[in-house]
Amino acid sequence: MGKVVTLGEIMLRLSTQSGNRLVQSNSLQAHYGGGEANVAISLANYGHEVIFASKVPDTALGEAVFKHLHGYQVDTHYLLTGSQRLGTYYLETGIGGRAAAVIYDRAESGFAAMNVLEWDLATLFDDVDIFHISGITPALSKKWQTMTLELMKQAKKSGCKVSFDSNYRSKLWSQKEAGQVIRQLLPYVDYCSAGKLDAVNLLGITNEPAEQEHELAFYYKEMHRLFPNIQLFYSTKRKIYSASANQLIGTLWQDNHYYESDIHEIDPIIDRVGAGDAFAGGILHGVLEQMTPQATVDFATAAAVLKHTVHGDCNQFNKEEVADFLRSGSGKIIR
Amino acid sequence: MGKVVTLGEIMLRLSTQSGNRLVQSNSLQAHYGGGEANVAISLANYGHEVIFASKVPDTALGEAVFKHLHGYQVDTHYLLTGSQRLGTYYLETGIGGRAAAVIYDRAESGFAAMNVLEWDLATLFDDVDIFHISGITPALSKKWQTMTLELMKQAKKSGCKVSFDSNYRSKLWSQKEAGQVIRQLLPYVDYCSAGKLDAVNLLGITNEPAEQEHELAFYYKEMHRLFPNIQLFYSTKRKIYSASANQLIGTLWQDNHYYESDIHEIDPIIDRVGAGDAFAGGILHGVLEQMTPQATVDFATAAAVLKHTVHGDCNQFNKEEVADFLRSGSGKIIR
Amino acid sequence: MGKVVTLGEIMLRLSTQSGNRLVQSNSLQAHYGGGEANVAISLANYGHEVIFASKVPDTALGEAVFKHLHGYQVDTHYLLTGSQRLGTYYLETGIGGRAAAVIYDRAESGFAAMNVLEWDLATLFDDVDIFHISGITPALSKKWQTMTLELMKQAKKSGCKVSFDSNYRSKLWSQKEAGQVIRQLLPYVDYCSAGKLDAVNLLGITNEPAEQEHELAFYYKEMHRLFPNIQLFYSTKRKIYSASANQLIGTLWQDNHYYESDIHEIDPIIDRVGAGDAFAGGILHGVLEQMTPQATVDFATAAAVLKHTVHGDCNQFNKEEVADFLRSGSGKIIR
Amino acid sequence: MGKVVTLGEIMLRLSTQSGNRLVQSNSLQAHYGGGEANVAISLANYGHEVIFASKVPDTALGEAVFKHLHGYQVDTHYLLTGSQRLGTYYLETGIGGRAAAVIYDRAESGFAAMNVLEWDLATLFDDVDIFHISGITPALSKKWQTMTLELMKQAKKSGCKVSFDSNYRSKLWSQKEAGQVIRQLLPYVDYCSAGKLDAVNLLGITNEPAEQEHELAFYYKEMHRLFPNIQLFYSTKRKIYSASANQLIGTLWQDNHYYESDIHEIDPIIDRVGAGDAFAGGILHGVLEQMTPQATVDFATAAAVLKHTVHGDCNQFNKEEVADFLRSGSGKIIR
Amino acid sequence: MGKVVTLGEIMLRLSTQSGNRLVQSNSLQAHYGGGEANVAISLANYGHEVIFASKVPDTALGEAVFKHLHGYQVDTHYLLTGSQRLGTYYLETGIGGRAAAVIYDRAESGFAAMNVLEWDLATLFDDVDIFHISGITPALSKKWQTMTLELMKQAKKSGCKVSFDSNYRSKLWSQKEAGQVIRQLLPYVDYCSAGKLDAVNLLGITNEPAEQEHELAFYYKEMHRLFPNIQLFYSTKRKIYSASANQLIGTLWQDNHYYESDIHEIDPIIDRVGAGDAFAGGILHGVLEQMTPQATVDFATAAAVLKHTVHGDCNQFNKEEVADFLRSGSGKIIR
Amino acid sequence: MGKVVTLGEIMLRLSTQSGNRLVQSNSLQAHYGGGEANVAISLANYGHEVIFASKVPDTALGEAVFKHLHGYQVDTHYLLTGSQRLGTYYLETGIGGRAAAVIYDRAESGFAAMNVLEWDLATLFDDVDIFHISGITPALSKKWQTMTLELMKQAKKSGCKVSFDSNYRSKLWSQKEAGQVIRQLLPYVDYCSAGKLDAVNLLGITNEPAEQEHELAFYYKEMHRLFPNIQLFYSTKRKIYSASANQLIGTLWQDNHYYESDIHEIDPIIDRVGAGDAFAGGILHGVLEQMTPQATVDFATAAAVLKHTVHGDCNQFNKEEVADFLRSGSGKIIR
Repeated sequence: MGKVVTLGEIMLRLSTQSGNRLVQSNSLQAHYGGGEANVAISLANYGHEVIFASKVPDTALGEAVFKHLHGYQVDTHYLLTGSQRLGTYYLETGIGGRAAAVIYDRAESGFAAMNVLEWDLATLFDDVDIFHISGITPALSKKWQTMTLELMKQAKKSGCKVSFDSNYRSKLWSQKEAGQVIRQLLPYVDYCSAGKLDAVNLLGITNEPAEQEHELAFYYKEMHRLFPNIQLFYSTKRKIYSASANQLIGTLWQDNHYYESDIHEIDPIIDRVGAGDAFAGGILHGVLEQMTPQATVDFATAAAVLKHTVHGDCNQFNKEEVADFLRSGSGKIIR
Repeated sequence: MGKVVTLGEIMLRLSTQSGNRLVQSNSLQAHYGGGEANVAISLANYGHEVIFASKVPDTALGEAVFKHLHGYQVDTHYLLTGSQRLGTYYLETGIGGRAAAVIYDRAESGFAAMNVLEWDLATLFDDVDIFHISGITPALSKKWQTMTLELMKQAKKSGCKVSFDSNYRSKLWSQKEAGQVIRQLLPYVDYCSAGKLDAVNLLGITNEPAEQEHELAFYYKEMHRLFPNIQLFYSTKRKIYSASANQLIGTLWQDNHYYESDIHEIDPIIDRVGAGDAFAGGILHGVLEQMTPQATVDFATAAAVLKHTVHGDCNQFNKEEVADFLRSGSGKIIR
Repeated sequence: MGKVVTLGEIMLRLSTQSGNRLVQSNSLQAHYGGGEANVAISLANYGHEVIFASKVPDTALGEAVFKHLHGYQVDTHYLLTGSQRLGTYYLETGIGGRAAAVIYDRAESGFAAMNVLEWDLATLFDDVDIFHISGITPALSKKWQTMTLELMKQAKKSGCKVSFDSNYRSKLWSQKEAGQVIRQLLPYVDYCSAGKLDAVNLLGITNEPAEQEHELAFYYKEMHRLFPNIQLFYSTKRKIYSASANQLIGTLWQDNHYYESDIHEIDPIIDRVGAGDAFAGGILHGVLEQMTPQATVDFATAAAVLKHTVHGDCNQFNKEEVADFLRSGSGKIIR
Repeated sequence: MGKVVTLGEIMLRLSTQSGNRLVQSNSLQAHYGGGEANVAISLANYGHEVIFASKVPDTALGEAVFKHLHGYQVDTHYLLTGSQRLGTYYLETGIGGRAAAVIYDRAESGFAAMNVLEWDLATLFDDVDIFHISGITPALSKKWQTMTLELMKQAKKSGCKVSFDSNYRSKLWSQKEAGQVIRQLLPYVDYCSAGKLDAVNLLGITNEPAEQEHELAFYYKEMHRLFPNIQLFYSTKRKIYSASANQLIGTLWQDNHYYESDIHEIDPIIDRVGAGDAFAGGILHGVLEQMTPQATVDFATAAAVLKHTVHGDCNQFNKEEVADFLRSGSGKIIR
Repeated sequence: MGKVVTLGEIMLRLSTQSGNRLVQSNSLQAHYGGGEANVAISLANYGHEVIFASKVPDTALGEAVFKHLHGYQVDTHYLLTGSQRLGTYYLETGIGGRAAAVIYDRAESGFAAMNVLEWDLATLFDDVDIFHISGITPALSKKWQTMTLELMKQAKKSGCKVSFDSNYRSKLWSQKEAGQVIRQLLPYVDYCSAGKLDAVNLLGITNEPAEQEHELAFYYKEMHRLFPNIQLFYSTKRKIYSASANQLIGTLWQDNHYYESDIHEIDPIIDRVGAGDAFAGGILHGVLEQMTPQATVDFATAAAVLKHTVHGDCNQFNKEEVADFLRSGSGKIIR
Repeated sequence: MGKVVTLGEIMLRLSTQSGNRLVQSNSLQAHYGGGEANVAISLANYGHEVIFASKVPDTALGEAVFKHLHGYQVDTHYLLTGSQRLGTYYLETGIGGRAAAVIYDRAESGFAAMNVLEWDLATLFDDVDIFHISGITPALSKKWQTMTLELMKQAKKSGCKVSFDSNYRSKLWSQKEAGQVIRQLLPYVDYCSAGKLDAVNLLGITNEPAEQEHELAFYYKEMHRLFPNIQLFYSTKRKIYSASANQLIGTLWQDNHYYESDIHEIDPIIDRVGAGDAFAGGILHGVLEQMTPQATVDFATAAAVLKHTVHGDCNQFNKEEVADFLRSGSGKIIR
């Protein structure tokens, strides 16, 4: 089992019940989550030792974040308190042809407003195998752009691998700004979640795949050419029939080869938020356990598919359950 | 923006939660709605000035009707009080192969039992662009058959266009009686929602479309031949796979041409009641805004599709949201 | 109308709400059911006189079982009290690709722990047309293996037909043990629910159908060759797309002919538990009403399909509703 | 154990959740009940054989009434179907200083609209010990005034005792009309629930109790003087602190003596509807079991108190539970 | 009927269900409210024409605010959109000995961050009888201190009366700062809600009432001496037994006399938020209707008491219901 | 901060919603708890390092127990898996005059059926300050009687203090058997929760307190005379007005003195289960923190009172919240 640090913002999500609009809702579901926190929980569920570093307010909402993470045995020694407010977002759950709608209310959260790295960097990465962070963090502020770089450098210095999930959010920054920043970060990255849109829109890759080529294989190769330090690229291909039914294929580029999972049809979708984090968590698990690339991408995709079947942002499955699903995956009751 | 009057009965709907039969239900969802009230709300959501005329009891149930309409800024100056009871119906929500089941308990409601038109007809249609009424109203009583005619005549006299939705209900009257009455009303109608079944069963059209012809185009043309005063016919084609999944196509006949929307697959259906009203509201919006016929039918169909994704009888979407759906319509989260 | 006795264990089922895992659930749905109790309720709903014999504790949980059965007018004169505990099981409801998961907590229930047949066998089968029991009962204990045999013999002696549903549960006994016991029981059986897996795994049928042959027709014939006393075999063919969508075909072998229902696509599945019991109840209804084999299998399959659309273990439909579904089955609202 | 017939209307009650007004409620609780049906259920819970005679529609709502009664083993052979509609009422549950508010929607129900007694009177009272009916029934229509009389006469002829609960409802008839009718009925009554208000307002008793006299004892005696055929008068004294807290004392006049229960403080009140029926059921149980008057009034009052602790119109307690409450009544957990 | 403008912040309240702590809550109740908005709704419910002026974001949350106000027919022509975020607060509902706990998350809301008065002051107070504002508004920012003064001056210039509710919130500003600002505002005020704590802590009144004097009468008189322009002072005396049970007395000082309502015992408390606003609304209604001071304080106190019996921040009662409560107030069902 | 081990059974509690009987409940609330687990959580909430030792099954129910404990940061290294079943009990929540009712279904749970102490006793008590166990554990089996003794001896040998809560359960063993066993255990105990009933019924103390003496002070002194090794006795005095309202006083005997808390009136009671454990947790916290006896009993009683205000078995309050309640305790909102 490995040891992992993930660092990022964790927010309160307030979501409607399926079939209601936000404007008609007099009751909202409360979930706590964030890209890096969700990855932390996935990995903790698979048995790894995981530290989640962030900052939350010193109120019952902050306490609820602690309790949420403790429930999955995530280490919270680097979860600071004292922030002004907890970032929040409202999710009007999509259904059928009606897309989900998000309202962010995350400005000025304690994490976003941080000006210096408040954690003890001297110890944070001790004996850590992987440091995982996402592109949402540098999108929060100018300060966070330099602090993200500083964290990556510190992690590399401590001898740990850096994992980065691009996670582009158009509501937080422009493609241009994101591209500039991410290009500065990628030289420090070992494992990177990025897809075609990242390659084209953020990294400026303009040449195009040959007709007979796997599109993603091409883009991974191109990105690898730009950043040869990155050993592993991964992302999912999602075909969106509706907010309730999607098709999902996991992809992985490792050791100069391209791997794809089986095609998964997901219907109905209970909760789509966090599926990408579940996929990332599965990939990092494969890396930590030195699974074969094919086994890694299959496991990660299975985890992502299962995530869609439960309410809340985070993966609720341990590694045996993911493996069972891969084996049978049928929806059959055993009794 | 236009000004519209709709007039009809508004009822309390008591519905089961999906997956329960009425006989097992110890909790019922309460919604207020009716064909004309639903059209009123759609148009108010699109920014028009809308008056809904009806009659409700002087109790908390009547008050709830007022509150419901006020929430959407529908004008209630012509919503009378003092009726005996509020019409009610029970809806056992359908799911999969099990169809929805309706129990009407609407007899002797204050609206249905009305004997004279109690509104001030001298002012009701002042500066009104469209008067909308449905075939449910004349189905309520002999009195209502003559009163519906009287309303239409009065509306025409005031210079406003008359919109009529045939809305045939077999539980309220026979095809024969409905046909006789509706044939008397149609000479006063400008915009008419009616489909093949109305043409054949109520209007007695017996010749059949040629093979290469659009079936509905044919029937619209035939109805137009009988009632050349009607400028615009519209209705939806619905393929029912199950109570949870339908296909929907909107159709419109305007300026002697036939228009069809794209094909929409609706799965799952959250609440099917009121989809026809959402379609009618969209058509009337297109008319008021002088949209092209194709834009009108596309907008109206999109509104109808969205209606299926929310609980309750009425369209919960403004015109920007309908337009967004038409543009993207994917079920994709923007964040 | 006929008279039927069914005998077996009835349990409390505690199930999660769809979209939640058991581990996250702070509220569980309580339903009472069991194979033989569910068949009893189906037949009572169709108008037959039905006795359900079992044993429950003398507590509020036992009382709830009585109330559940009385609600469907099942005769409880042979429902004993005084048992130690009520068997329980936990159902994590499946959804999409995630299968349902069952945790049994049924050991040492009053019924399972029974050592002698505590009912008055002298009267239990008086004027009874059919005695129905399932393979779960002999799976409960060695004692129950001999007691099941004894019940069947007694039933035959009283002149009533014996109906047996193999209902193999791998969590209760091995295929080998089940096969030995069931082979002892089948000589007393008139109507038998068993499929290909029962034929191969329990009855040791090793030859295989010819290519152009209906697979189930072949196995029914083979089983009939072994147990010529059995007049009627039946079971369903289920294609599992996911925990939320299945295809179902009912099959029946009667008078040396093989019959199949139409193909039914079930989507979404509200509650799959008890669908087999609803099918069995439909078959026995056909037998009691002397319907044609085709009508019998169509009715039984329709009942099973409808069962999937309601929460709880038991069929909530009377015979008119099942017949209506067979006629229209569309998901269309009549209003 | 005795045999009892009760006859009256049974309605659907739609009530709000405590703390919400009807106008804000989008979900309503559905319960089935009525004075005579509630008494029937109380007596069935105590082990008596009870027939409930009424008429309900041939819809899922009628079915739900049957299922409700069967759950308590009330005999429904005299529960007719075919009525137009089920009487309904809306209850805005009171709380603290805010009183409950009732909206009746019961006109034209199948029972209220009945013109002739549709039951087989030749058999209805066979071997019946007590026939129970309330003053709500003659309040429904002129027809019902004569039909109530006819029923009482028929019951007396069949040798059964007549029980009458005056149950005056100001929303249904005037004191004057009620008084005239009830004075015609009382000569056929053996057991009568009536209190001071009935004595003064309906029966015209104008003299007043002496100062040192129990007020109710005085009125019972006066009523007995008018109707010497009535052996037993009973009612409760209720002090209303608020909609959530009441004081209750049961009273009984039997064999020319006046009996009172202990004082019960009820706080909080979960559901007050049906408490009087639970009291009446307790009294009739005492009569059938030939309990002493003191034991009778204690039992009946305990049943009424317990009724306040459960949702729904009817008493959910068997005789052992009522007796346990009388013995300990503390709110102490035994574990 | 009068015409009133209220102006202030409106927030989203997210509250727990009674009996749960915030940290354990996975579902929160959503209500919209604010002191001035609540007063607006009270007065609209009593039939007055009411404008609520504020600013909300251009999102579904802003839309929900509009819908909330429209449901009560509050005029929203001066409700601006375009603000950054909607102020939010979390309420852990108190129960018994456990006090309610509030977490504010209102900083940087569009209203709080306003720098200039964005409404058209030239028209805002046209024909307006009363302008109502609370001490929460100047507590939001330095800017709001001057803007509040400006609004009051403008209102006075337009000839309307100014109503001010001191509403001191220790989480928003210190007593010293509040005192300085409020002393600048009071010279423009006609009707003022303030109590002993305001007199002592904010207005610096140090002398004390004589022993035989009504404490509040004394403080009102003292405050009147400082601000002789204020014709009317009012506030409630609340005795807190627990979070679930309070005693409430309304007080009013008008025309140099002191008036008190009856003592009201409130048990249980469903929702205490907004009770003060309901009281203020009742007082202003009395003023607008020129009720006697005693009738005014009785009405206002009754409204405040009723407010405690419903979920949400705002008074759900019309003037007939408040009057009914004053007359009977018992918790008695009329049926 | 101290280090504590608690050891005992943890069960699944399935409880009804207040106002429903178990027999009518189709949904049950799931909570995990047990005397020793609840004490563990209290102490973890106060910041101590706490190990909870027990055994649960290797199923989702076992997992849920782990997640429950991890949420409070209780150490589960000594929480074994592999047991047959999880003990369960059903709680019909009491309300007003209706007492709560418990149905145990705990026989044959993995913990109860344990035959040898399966934990590593060599390490379990390393550096542990207090070992806490309750009288429920030896009540489970003969084996557990000797194993409890063995655990206490081992704990004493390791130098840690032994805390024992008598927790007599009449449904598990007789007073006679309990007395014999407990008298064997008490010589190893340092801190003991026991009251008058324990003294009289289990320890055979027959002499009685003098009239002017505190009853509990007398019994504590007597018990101390029998077991001079016990330094500290504690228990609560509870006056039960109803299942919804109780009075509570905490008592403590330490250093040969008797201490009492203030009188607390608790109304309403949300959930009474676990209040004794919350009291015990408070006492042990006082001991670990070397608070004065008066401060200890005040703190412990406050914790017990607060426990009544939340759903579930365990104390949801940290030490600051308990202290706040002691200071203000009013039910006042701070905002």
